[in-house]
Amino acid sequence: MSSSDPFSGEAITARLASLARHTDAPGRMTRLSLSPAHRAAADEVLALFRAAGLAAEIDPLGTVVGRLACGANDAKLLLIGSHIDTVPDGGIYDGMLGVMTGLAVIEEFRRTGRRLPFDIELLAFSDEEGVRFPSPFSSSRAVAGTFDAKLLEERDRDGVSRAEALKAFGCDPALWPTVARDGERLLGYLELHIEQGPVLESAGHPLGVVSAIVGLSLGRMNVTGAAGHAGTTPMHLRRDALACAAEIILAIEAMARGNDAIVATVGQLSVSPGAGNVIPGSVSFSYDIRSPRDAARVKALALAMGRAREIAEERGCSIDIEMTTAMPAAACDPALMAALADAAGEHAPELVSGAGHDAMIFRNVCPQAMLFVRSKGGLSHHPDEFTSADDIGVAAKALHDAVVALAEGNVS
Amino acid sequence: MSSSDPFSGEAITARLASLARHTDAPGRMTRLSLSPAHRAAADEVLALFRAAGLAAEIDPLGTVVGRLACGANDAKLLLIGSHIDTVPDGGIYDGMLGVMTGLAVIEEFRRTGRRLPFDIELLAFSDEEGVRFPSPFSSSRAVAGTFDAKLLEERDRDGVSRAEALKAFGCDPALWPTVARDGERLLGYLELHIEQGPVLESAGHPLGVVSAIVGLSLGRMNVTGAAGHAGTTPMHLRRDALACAAEIILAIEAMARGNDAIVATVGQLSVSPGAGNVIPGSVSFSYDIRSPRDAARVKALALAMGRAREIAEERGCSIDIEMTTAMPAAACDPALMAALADAAGEHAPELVSGAGHDAMIFRNVCPQAMLFVRSKGGLSHHPDEFTSADDIGVAAKALHDAVVALAEGNVS
Repeated sequence: MSSSDPFSGEAITARLASLARHTDAPGRMTRLSLSPAHRAAADEVLALFRAAGLAAEIDPLGTVVGRLACGANDAKLLLIGSHIDTVPDGGIYDGMLGVMTGLAVIEEFRRTGRRLPFDIELLAFSDEEGVRFPSPFSSSRAVAGTFDAKLLEERDRDGVSRAEALKAFGCDPALWPTVARDGERLLGYLELHIEQGPVLESAGHPLGVVSAIVGLSLGRMNVTGAAGHAGTTPMHLRRDALACAAEIILAIEAMARGNDAIVATVGQLSVSPGAGNVIPGSVSFSYDIRSPRDAARVKALALAMGRAREIAEERGCSIDIEMTTAMPAAACDPALMAALADAAGEHAPELVSGAGHDAMIFRNVCPQAMLFVRSKGGLSHHPDEFTSADDIGVAAKALHDAVVALAEGNVS
Repeated sequence: MSSSDPFSGEAITARLASLARHTDAPGRMTRLSLSPAHRAAADEVLALFRAAGLAAEIDPLGTVVGRLACGANDAKLLLIGSHIDTVPDGGIYDGMLGVMTGLAVIEEFRRTGRRLPFDIELLAFSDEEGVRFPSPFSSSRAVAGTFDAKLLEERDRDGVSRAEALKAFGCDPALWPTVARDGERLLGYLELHIEQGPVLESAGHPLGVVSAIVGLSLGRMNVTGAAGHAGTTPMHLRRDALACAAEIILAIEAMARGNDAIVATVGQLSVSPGAGNVIPGSVSFSYDIRSPRDAARVKALALAMGRAREIAEERGCSIDIEMTTAMPAAACDPALMAALADAAGEHAPELVSGAGHDAMIFRNVCPQAMLFVRSKGGLSHHPDEFTSADDIGVAAKALHDAVVALAEGNVS
């Protein structure tokens, strides 16, 4: 980046485009956690970190870690992170923008020779989207010290465990306990991310400061009916698992439509045996319920589960409900929020994040806060996801200025 | 088979069990059309046909054909057939029983040295279930002379065309025009099949004579909404393709529940992009509507399509409806029915087939009829599909006796 324009949104966008070449599905941005494309992307990030003068490595959970040491003994540690895995057919900004703006900030510190009173670690997490394995955030949990060894046993749809996938990625997952940072040393965790929603666009401002991240309840419902021949089984004798699932999906939608504090989504569904001339014998589908209010989320989940059980019983089907993730809402740290707000400008709105983020994993570990950047059309998890180079340049500058303010103790 | 028990249900069942070893999914009976397991099964059938003294080969559409010539010039030709492909996770009787009982009948003719006044061809069709490619019955259409070259271009879910699959199977699909039999020569087509429904079990009789085969309307509905982030898109701004599909599926079910002449099934469904935290952007699902009354079926399809379009419009989604198969109901031939009824015993019920069968393809080509054998619990397209060895022995004897009656001109 040229000295006249230390935060070039074009240069950062070019790095995002280069990372986007690493995909599991050519022509789409599909980089599931720990896939071969993810490894190629991690290697590119590792090389960029090293080229920027960071001591860098890939940790036992697949996170690319770059360290900028200030040289002081017992220095505090500021974490700046986001993720480089994606959803299937997603965009090139979600996650990667936070890593690449963080890198631009560190490159600027090195270019100007600025001395900081704390160490910085830049983190490119490996497992935020939660698409491949049932539970997301395994890599940030390891850093935060809240990893659970059971996560290594979770399996993807092909039966591959997270431990096996990590080994194939080149990691030694048995070393997970070594990844946890010393909570006493942590100054905080900062994450820059695209908004993935319409608030900043409608406010006409490129940046926003997150006040809280919604809580999540994630899981699956598995409906079992009776397979049978589509031509010879009278309608009144059927126990059709897909018709049962369809009724439950509409009940979940109706519940969320009737409650402003809630959004609920069924995004994955598979039918077995899955032939046009066979009545579905079993159907498995995901649920995703979110709210900034934990009590509202817990009540909505209980309502959804109750209606699902009633519908299954009425239809002579059985239902098994798995709850894989229950994550409380995470309020952001007021001091870090203030540093970001000062850097983002007086018109930067405060907003709630409807998306989960690695930042929420640091909730009870250290102060955490997030800077959001405007998304065109509020679109994300979609190939048309877009954030302008101008907004990216402004965002990188704000992240830089917030870190400088923390370094100088100028936090309002 | 021993001379004291020329039609041993146990021996026929043993051959079905041996064929069942050839599966695409170990532990399940899954043998999709033209798969490697199907080729292994076809080779086993070919060897059995040859061991029984038939001139046998695999034709350009993958049908195993065994010929028993009577030696007369210009002899008429009787076809006896069924299929050896299966649905995913189906049973070992559906299709294969018709081929193996036909073989037992021919073995008995050769054992006793009976001279017939017509040739017989025994046919093990390759493509009845319609699971892999959009349109079923391609192999019997070729024999019947109603094959359409466009069928060679149909593709499976992996993008493999039927022509490519046939080549991989070892066939030369370009030779399809050579497969058509001379309609003038055809005496008729007989098929023995499990009932796949509950009528014979509740009637307490092992055999039934089919009076007609239901007509079918098969196709797919493709719903397009808008993918988006499950956490950041308010419920009222969503265009969720899966919720839309769920409402259509329930409308199709309600329509069929309200009409005794109709059954309707959605058996296959796929969601894109298919991640738990992404609102479904598109959903594709199959439909299967059947009726013995063509007018009722055509009206039901129009109703289903109309409701689907209304629901999609209300939800801001678009819908594309593909109609892949429209097959009229097929009445069976009275003379062939009479031969089967005499052989099956005076208490054998007449019944409508709710399932489609290769027999219906011969509707306008030659006389056709079917003998049904009792299915335990009416179950089919399911691993618990079962027909007793006793019933199989009785069925093989009845098929034999019906062919003898045709040979002797003793048709009532």
